Amino acid sequence: MNIDGKLIAKELREKLTVEVAELKAKHGVQPLLTVIIVGDDPASHIYVKNKVKQTQEVGMISNEILLPANTTEQYLLQQLEQLNNDTSVHGILVQLPLPKHLNESAVISAINPDKDVDGFHAVNSGRLFNGESNALVPCTPQGCVLLAKHHIGEDLTGLHAVIIGRSNIVGKPVAMLFLQENCTITIAHSKTKNLDEVCKQADILVAAVGIAQFVKADWVKKGATVIDVGINRIITEDGKTRLVGDVDYDNVVTKCGAITPVPGGVGPMTIACLLKNTLVATKRYLT
Amino acid sequence: MNIDGKLIAKELREKLTVEVAELKAKHGVQPLLTVIIVGDDPASHIYVKNKVKQTQEVGMISNEILLPANTTEQYLLQQLEQLNNDTSVHGILVQLPLPKHLNESAVISAINPDKDVDGFHAVNSGRLFNGESNALVPCTPQGCVLLAKHHIGEDLTGLHAVIIGRSNIVGKPVAMLFLQENCTITIAHSKTKNLDEVCKQADILVAAVGIAQFVKADWVKKGATVIDVGINRIITEDGKTRLVGDVDYDNVVTKCGAITPVPGGVGPMTIACLLKNTLVATKRYLT
Repeated sequence: MNIDGKLIAKELREKLTVEVAELKAKHGVQPLLTVIIVGDDPASHIYVKNKVKQTQEVGMISNEILLPANTTEQYLLQQLEQLNNDTSVHGILVQLPLPKHLNESAVISAINPDKDVDGFHAVNSGRLFNGESNALVPCTPQGCVLLAKHHIGEDLTGLHAVIIGRSNIVGKPVAMLFLQENCTITIAHSKTKNLDEVCKQADILVAAVGIAQFVKADWVKKGATVIDVGINRIITEDGKTRLVGDVDYDNVVTKCGAITPVPGGVGPMTIACLLKNTLVATKRYLT
Repeated sequence: MNIDGKLIAKELREKLTVEVAELKAKHGVQPLLTVIIVGDDPASHIYVKNKVKQTQEVGMISNEILLPANTTEQYLLQQLEQLNNDTSVHGILVQLPLPKHLNESAVISAINPDKDVDGFHAVNSGRLFNGESNALVPCTPQGCVLLAKHHIGEDLTGLHAVIIGRSNIVGKPVAMLFLQENCTITIAHSKTKNLDEVCKQADILVAAVGIAQFVKADWVKKGATVIDVGINRIITEDGKTRLVGDVDYDNVVTKCGAITPVPGGVGPMTIACLLKNTLVATKRYLT
């Protein structure tokens, strides 16, 4: 069966809408998310447009700052300092990737960790790693856990979560989140030997490798919950393009217990979790 | 066979002695480690005494600050601020545990991350997690990897490292370090099901659970490298006390490829790696 990320994300946004309204009524505060976008990357602009739309739908204020592709690092850092100091701004997000002349790591480090709604600042990584409750947790990993829980239930204790992929923005944080849920966790990657055997142990299998239809049916334990983070564009036999995940969906779906489809699985959860982080940052600011 | 931590730590200290002398000759700088100890915990005092002795043996300057058990948090934080600002101080270590009225997390957060030679600051956890080269890495986990490499060789690519234990100071950081070495990693813990089966996959098995002789011979794959982080005091049949690790050494030693004994395995590496971190912090300060 499919885990319907589109529906679950919608439910999360509805819950957030209520909480945002309550916050406004009780404290007179409306969460404000500022998104900075540098340059003209079309994919980034589409993505930011979606963020802005959904931010407004849940009753938050969205503020977009568009900067030209030749923006200097110094100017960008100044902008961030202003936003850090602006008490009306609760969340700050710098859309990645940045133009090549800008140092992403330096830019992310310049965001106040308590406004870092992407959760990419080293302080937030460290808080997540240490299991501190004040971490702002990267959005896609959060979405993966919510989707798994939607199918399995709240208590994941003792389940074995195998994550294929070890990136800083998906693989490693999602492993830490499943560890916090008392799962046994395994991180596998391109250098892993007997990957099929490793994956076959998974009660929860997360694929975040960026290779189309990489995970085969005989790697999946019967009844496992499969979370497919990949979004890959392939050309089909009739010459059309199609989006597929990192999992060989057609063959895995009949074997696993549940799977997130691509599109419509993990994808929709990412922005919903971004809005959740913005609300968390706003509430923390009030206390 | 045994992995001789005492000898390997000695070799590391000898290497550090040469590097400290070179640093002094080239730059006129002698690494200075300041250790703060609050209260009268006898174990802490013995441990700090060892640190001070070894710091001096490798040619570094050791500075001990002894504070009474009733020291206020405010006073301790002021001391740390002074040390943070003191350019002659390269490494700062607050001996744990602290008296109960002091908030350890707040105290650790007050140390300049670049002087945090224990590697416990959230920024260093985050850097380690993100694989950033400027992390100061906790000492015991560093020691575990050095011991494993001493037996296996520099290249651990593709080996499966299973870590039993998920603490912030051993289990999780050692997992991240083996992941950086291109190992497949599994973190197991008290909620793990079929722990024996999980452990049996390990090419490198790290035990950091704090339960005497917990890991049994039939959990260990033939030829595996076993790193025993535990130090437990047990009472033997003749009424004497004895130190043992988390591994059932007598039965495991004949089956595994190599094992760190307790005492004389991981223990001696911890202080040696602290000195290594102090040198790293000093060199980074120069650049």
